[in-house]
Amino acid sequence: MSAVSSGMTQTIHPTNWLERYSAALIYTVRVQITDLPGSLAAVLTAIAEVRTPMGDIRVIGADSQTKTRDLTIFCVDHEHISRTLEAINRVEGAEILHVTDEVMEIHRNGTIRTEPTVPLNTVMDLRIVYTPGVASVCEMIQATPERAWDYTAKGRKIAIVTNGTAVLGLGKIGALAGLPVMEGKAAILAHSVGVSAEPILVDSKDPEVVINTVAAIANGYGAIQLEDIGAPACFEIEKTLNEMLDIPVFHDDQHGTATVCVAGLVNALKATGQTVAGCKALVLGAGAAGLAIAQFLQDFGVQDVIVCDSRGALTSDRKEGMNPWKQRIAERTNNDKISGPLDKAIRGRNLFIGVSRPNTVSQDMIRSMEIGSIVFALANPVSEISAADALEAGAAIALDGRGMNNALAYPGIFRGALDARATDITFEMKLAAAQALADAAPSGQLLPDMTDQSVHERVTQAVIAAWQNR
Amino acid sequence: MSAVSSGMTQTIHPTNWLERYSAALIYTVRVQITDLPGSLAAVLTAIAEVRTPMGDIRVIGADSQTKTRDLTIFCVDHEHISRTLEAINRVEGAEILHVTDEVMEIHRNGTIRTEPTVPLNTVMDLRIVYTPGVASVCEMIQATPERAWDYTAKGRKIAIVTNGTAVLGLGKIGALAGLPVMEGKAAILAHSVGVSAEPILVDSKDPEVVINTVAAIANGYGAIQLEDIGAPACFEIEKTLNEMLDIPVFHDDQHGTATVCVAGLVNALKATGQTVAGCKALVLGAGAAGLAIAQFLQDFGVQDVIVCDSRGALTSDRKEGMNPWKQRIAERTNNDKISGPLDKAIRGRNLFIGVSRPNTVSQDMIRSMEIGSIVFALANPVSEISAADALEAGAAIALDGRGMNNALAYPGIFRGALDARATDITFEMKLAAAQALADAAPSGQLLPDMTDQSVHERVTQAVIAAWQNR
Repeated sequence: MSAVSSGMTQTIHPTNWLERYSAALIYTVRVQITDLPGSLAAVLTAIAEVRTPMGDIRVIGADSQTKTRDLTIFCVDHEHISRTLEAINRVEGAEILHVTDEVMEIHRNGTIRTEPTVPLNTVMDLRIVYTPGVASVCEMIQATPERAWDYTAKGRKIAIVTNGTAVLGLGKIGALAGLPVMEGKAAILAHSVGVSAEPILVDSKDPEVVINTVAAIANGYGAIQLEDIGAPACFEIEKTLNEMLDIPVFHDDQHGTATVCVAGLVNALKATGQTVAGCKALVLGAGAAGLAIAQFLQDFGVQDVIVCDSRGALTSDRKEGMNPWKQRIAERTNNDKISGPLDKAIRGRNLFIGVSRPNTVSQDMIRSMEIGSIVFALANPVSEISAADALEAGAAIALDGRGMNNALAYPGIFRGALDARATDITFEMKLAAAQALADAAPSGQLLPDMTDQSVHERVTQAVIAAWQNR
Repeated sequence: MSAVSSGMTQTIHPTNWLERYSAALIYTVRVQITDLPGSLAAVLTAIAEVRTPMGDIRVIGADSQTKTRDLTIFCVDHEHISRTLEAINRVEGAEILHVTDEVMEIHRNGTIRTEPTVPLNTVMDLRIVYTPGVASVCEMIQATPERAWDYTAKGRKIAIVTNGTAVLGLGKIGALAGLPVMEGKAAILAHSVGVSAEPILVDSKDPEVVINTVAAIANGYGAIQLEDIGAPACFEIEKTLNEMLDIPVFHDDQHGTATVCVAGLVNALKATGQTVAGCKALVLGAGAAGLAIAQFLQDFGVQDVIVCDSRGALTSDRKEGMNPWKQRIAERTNNDKISGPLDKAIRGRNLFIGVSRPNTVSQDMIRSMEIGSIVFALANPVSEISAADALEAGAAIALDGRGMNNALAYPGIFRGALDARATDITFEMKLAAAQALADAAPSGQLLPDMTDQSVHERVTQAVIAAWQNR
């Protein structure tokens, strides 16, 4: 299984050191260094000694005695960058001139913008795009509203709706603080499948306000992506909006995650020779992703599923820490009514999928699973257990959150749903997307690379076909 | 006044014939014509005989006996295009192969799209734009919400909100049918000042729903443009939202129109040697634009203003067809309590501004005004009275809706308000915009050309200065 294991943990990936660091901060440090043999090497040695990965090194300027270079470095947190700068400063003949926060610079003025798709240079252009020419387009849509799909941006546009109650691993940071994430999602959508996406920030934790607001503005969009909305409110919001609206409403944290998860599972089963029917799954996390994954696994044919939250296994008669959505899944899963904490529930399982919190799974727990199990530890930015530790404890395949990204699935799912004029995103469409992703993975990897743009076209076509064959 | 009059009616403009026709439909007719001397001329003669203006003529193909050409023609309505096609068909040796509706083609898939402003080609790009890098931007905004203006698209983005109750001259066609107009406005904003604008369609005639919906999503935008919302609901919506929100809320049909109107007035007064204090204004139309123009005229220093609606002059004691907003303006205007129909109220006035319905003003009414009056007849797509008829009846200056366009004002107003981080768009900002527009008009014209992009920068700077000097 070494080839697969290597694919999982991506040990050959050039950014691997960085990934092991969970480095999210990227700085460019401008350093003036005395131009003597070994002086650059001394700076790099100092940086290496504080365990800071390096990116590009570029010469910016030079005089008779010094060279000025921009060094790109990757850091985990602010303490890490401070430590690195101090290390550079301690090198004799090195002087830091300037430090640029590259993440902040990239996000300056946001990551998306609206562009015209038509010429606007002449009076005639304006008369066609705007008044008076536009009136005939308006009248056509008034007479036949479906034409809006073809003669406005609606057919290629979605709203990405958040109320900021479960943003990344950051939690309830509010809708505005979540905006950079929504813009990033929108930028990826535009880049990968040419779908326009508008972040819609609904400033309320009240599901009813979110529902009413989205319902009021939905007519301008071909689909609604719910994003980073906390459980259990997200379930009610999605269900109600799907009933109210004639366009798809898709909570990416639920179904995008589940889709990518099942895509990885398809290849993991293939690699290990296991069968869907033989899976004994434990899903850790009973939030948006956990419940959706459990449901998807069942729909996919996995008959033995246990869902755990921080209190342990969900059973139909558990009373503490339940909600109607947990109750619903509890009644459909855990046929053997296994109760108690995670370390008890995980024993003898052969598939672990974690979408919970960092460092919640020990090597002993993995050892208590069947030998050669599949372990997807997807908590972000730090996993329930690192892929390396899981493999060491006997897992056949281990994947962590950095090897898996919703951005593999949602672009093609939305483009496919829009192109098919789907009114819903069905299980079959999600399954088709998962299968397309599984098929698109390079040999020895569970999932395709994020930068392989052809993946999105494959997912799109699979989703369209699944809707058309419904 | 001939130079000014000529500027007003744009008699030298190349699209003038078209404009006189109010032609909003543009077709490309592909015609195969026997290749003999005079055969193209025969087709053009046939087209001219049904009074159809021509645009481009291009050779598309040829064989030994025929040439195939694309002829662009401009039509007023569907009867007009039918008539034109019949005329072409009657020419011996001419055969129509294909007719393309150019307006529809331009509007196919809409006129705006969302684009990424950042690279998304490598894993590192994705890690900066999206997770995990984006987390540090989120955390910064959570700690200091004002940073969203700099580190998301918010600082360069507005929402264009409509409920479709007063779209162009088409009326209550619904929000979805109004979407092509909103997209056109957004396309112009992006093109002229680099501001992203998202059409927000609120599917409700209830002002409270519009207010609550906009308030719920406003945090993602630097300003709100209300658009094509009918009076009097628009007044309540704008007032309430301006009180609720800390970003500007600007109803373009009111203030954009008033701003461009006053810009034209500044130059008209200069051209005629009249003074603001000497103006005896009659505003025809007591909807969004009419009431806003009346208010702007007063704030601008015009002391004698009468507002008329379809029932005649508004007076403080009139009972029929009033609403609180008409009542409010009635109490501030019409000091002499002139009552009765338009033809009575207009007598002896020297400034007419119409924002009402086509063909509501006769030449006799213009003759009853002071000699050398200023007439802005802005109803769209057909004026209250044509500029030519008004000039013939003694007006010194006449402008109709085709010579005036809100798109001159709102781009610079919004860019200025955003750049200044204004929380409101004040009278002083609108006046500064009007003055900048007046100053930017070429000699002999009341207003700048729509295609002069430098106008928007001038308006932007004037608006910023007005906010900073408040």
